[in-house]
Formats: sequence, structure tokens, C-alpha cells
Amino acid sequence: IRIGQGFDAHRWGGGDSVWLCGVEITHTQTLIGHSDADAGLHALTDALLGAAGLGDIGDHFPPTDPQWKGAASDQFLRHAADLVRGVGAEIVNVDVTLICERPKIKPHREAMRARIAEILNITIDRVSVKATTTEGMGFTGREEGLAAQAICAIEL
Amino acid sequence: IRIGQGFDAHRWGGGDSVWLCGVEITHTQTLIGHSDADAGLHALTDALLGAAGLGDIGDHFPPTDPQWKGAASDQFLRHAADLVRGVGAEIVNVDVTLICERPKIKPHREAMRARIAEILNITIDRVSVKATTTEGMGFTGREEGLAAQAICAIEL
Amino acid sequence: IRIGQGFDAHRWGGGDSVWLCGVEITHTQTLIGHSDADAGLHALTDALLGAAGLGDIGDHFPPTDPQWKGAASDQFLRHAADLVRGVGAEIVNVDVTLICERPKIKPHREAMRARIAEILNITIDRVSVKATTTEGMGFTGREEGLAAQAICAIEL
Ligand SMILES: [Mg+2]
Ligand SMILES: [Mg+2]
Ligand SMILES: [Mg+2]
Repeated sequence: IRIGQGFDAHRWGGGDSVWLCGVEITHTQTLIGHSDADAGLHALTDALLGAAGLGDIGDHFPPTDPQWKGAASDQFLRHAADLVRGVGAEIVNVDVTLICERPKIKPHREAMRARIAEILNITIDRVSVKATTTEGMGFTGREEGLAAQAICAIEL
Repeated sequence: IRIGQGFDAHRWGGGDSVWLCGVEITHTQTLIGHSDADAGLHALTDALLGAAGLGDIGDHFPPTDPQWKGAASDQFLRHAADLVRGVGAEIVNVDVTLICERPKIKPHREAMRARIAEILNITIDRVSVKATTTEGMGFTGREEGLAAQAICAIEL
Repeated sequence: IRIGQGFDAHRWGGGDSVWLCGVEITHTQTLIGHSDADAGLHALTDALLGAAGLGDIGDHFPPTDPQWKGAASDQFLRHAADLVRGVGAEIVNVDVTLICERPKIKPHREAMRARIAEILNITIDRVSVKATTTEGMGFTGREEGLAAQAICAIEL
């Protein structure tokens, strides 16, 4: 077993929906980034790369590279999973925590788990998505942005 | 093995003691929340639920539910441990980090470890409690609140 | 397997180089602390101690102890590795995330991995160093300081 972790944050900006853990949610704002700014999938991509010692998301998908402008982040996660499997590892389980005051994550949790399971090609019981707030404190509490952290275990 | 992580934060407010990792500590402030606001136990509860893919603390103990008003958080953690064992898992080890400028955690560390070990019904060598500051920076550094993060490994 | 995590943060201050993950990087600022303020090695030291239930970095190297003034943090990490091995454990893998706007970590990543592998006496494929920003938000985004988090798996 090897383990990895990831952390990511993106700013809120004008919009009417946001991508989180591979699911588009209607919201009063969106997250801003070069790609679709899905902090949940970015943190998880980093966790997988970290577990296998394969660099980080910025190595594989540089934000300065125009080909990733507006990119759907499922391709980052799928690519990381492919790389991890390419070194002979199996994905054991993943756990993502979204840190934000809004939107409410619970109504979308099962859709997010199902989507991540699909992207990673693992069973849904091996995928966890959780949410918490910072009780109005810090940049997530002031709703300047959303943060996500993820960990994973791989068999290698 | 599966692994999980949790993060939680609560605001400081008027009081003369605070619950942290299941231990009541005399302090010049308390943490505010619907329950006893024990961020350490909340983060650990989320880590256990995350490892087993069983949702998060907000699912099982909604802060809007009057039955959890002022609740002692050991019951949240015990319930999470029961759920994790209910799916056939064993708790391997847990590691909690408290992030605050004050109170000093070190004098209470062994009591916290012992209390968590008791709640989880595991030996104390499988329980770690650590503390760090953010050197006066951010919401924990400004002493607006305390944050906690936890991870756990379970055998499933 | 047991797992541990660590978190650390230090403030930026006047200087022309900074120690990160055991490597000295030319930069327009330095990190301030009692020791060399290498937040990456400090977070990793805590992760190792946490996995083995051996306290935290503040226990073993109190910042109030003059013998650690200006200390190179590799000795903290080496000591933690020795303690972990002293209880019969093997270090399986480690993953460090540096959270800062600057300096750029990527050009130094391989040197950092190699240095950590050397300190821990493990192969480099078991060492991951990643970096992310908080997109200008929070204390890391405002460049008040740098944060680091680390996790590790040990065989015990
Ligand atoms: Mg991102
Ligand atoms: Mg809480
Ligand atoms: Mg430090």
C-alpha cells in the first residue's frame, strides 16, 4: 500500500453553475481557473500522483498550456489513474473533502461518488465525498473561494 | 486497508473551558457550535466515515437537528466507529492534528489519546494527537477559531 | 500499515534563500522560525511521529530549546525516522505538499525528493513532493507565509 494526498483551491467568480467532483451544480457563482476549476478532482488527481511518486497536476497539465483552457477535469483524473495503473498499481480507495460554505454538497454527494467511481473505474464503495465549512472563517468562510483536499490508498 | 481524512473548524467565543479530543480543558475561551464543538473528534469522525465510504458527520448528525444541541461529541465518534465495524472493518490507527495558537495541547495529549482509544476501543499506541500553530497567520493564527484534521487507516 | 499526517506553516521574512524539503532555494524572502523553518520537513517529521504514535515535533524539538536555534531540519526528520524504526516500523512512502504562490517548486522537486529519500534512507520512488497555490487567497495567497502538509505510510 502507498498513500497520497492533494490540496487545491479556486476563487469564486461570476457564473451560474460550478463543477465539483465531476458534477455540474447550479449555483449563484462559479469557480475560476484555467480549466473547469473542479478543485475536488484536482485535489484527487494530485493525491493519486502523490501516492505513486509521479509529480503533480501542474507537471502533467500546466496551467500555462492553452490545450487545457476550459478543460473538463475528468480527463486530468483519468490520466492520473492511467499513470498510476501504468506503474502496476491498483486504486484501493479515495476520500475527498470539499471545504465551502455553499453550495450544499449533500444533495450531490451520491452523484459525485458515482462519477468519480466511473472516472477511476472502481466501485462506488471505494469512493468517499465529504463536505465541511470553516464556520465563516478564512477564505473559504468569507466565500472568496473553495478548497478541497483528498487522500487515496493504492496497492503497489 | 482503506484510509480516510477529516477536517473541521470552529469559532472561539466566550467561555472558560473547551472540549478537544474528548477532554475538557480550562481555557479563556470556548469553541462555539451546535454540539460541544470538539473539532478534533469531529475531524476524526469524518475520517472514519470517509475511509468506509459512509458519508460525513453532517449526514449522520445534522446540525439542524435539535437532538444534537450541546451534544458531547464522543457519541458521534462512537457511532462512526460502530458504523465502520458494522461493515466489517477494524480500526488500524488514527492521527489527529489540532491547529491553534492556544491552548497548549501537549499537557493534555496523553489524556486525549487515552480518551480517543477508549471511545474507539483500540489500544493507545494506535492513537496519535499532535498540535501545531500557524504562526499568527490565518483564522487560526488570529485566534478567530481552531481547526483540526485527522486521518485514519481501517482494515476492510 | 499505519498512517500519519502533518501540517506546518511559517512566515515569510527578509532573506535571499529559503530551505524547503531539505533543499536551499534562492528566493526574495526566507521563512522565519527558530530552526531553519523548513515547513516541508517539519510537516513530514510530524507525519512520521503521528503514524507511530510518538508525539509531535514540538515534543522532541521544543522551539524554546536553544540547542535547536537555527537548526537544520534534516536532523529533526532523521531523528523521527530513527524513532519510527526504533519501534520496529519500516517507512513505506511519504507525500509532501507545499502550499505557496512562490517560489516555483517544480524546478527543485527532484532535488527535494532525492534529499528526503537520503535523509529517510528509502528509495526515491517512495518520496513525493508536490506544490499548489491558493490562488492569492488566505495567508499563503497573500504571501504572509508558506504552509506544508505531509502524509506517510509505515509498516508496523
Ligand atoms: Mg486547481
Ligand atoms: Mg464541527
Ligand atoms: Mg515548523
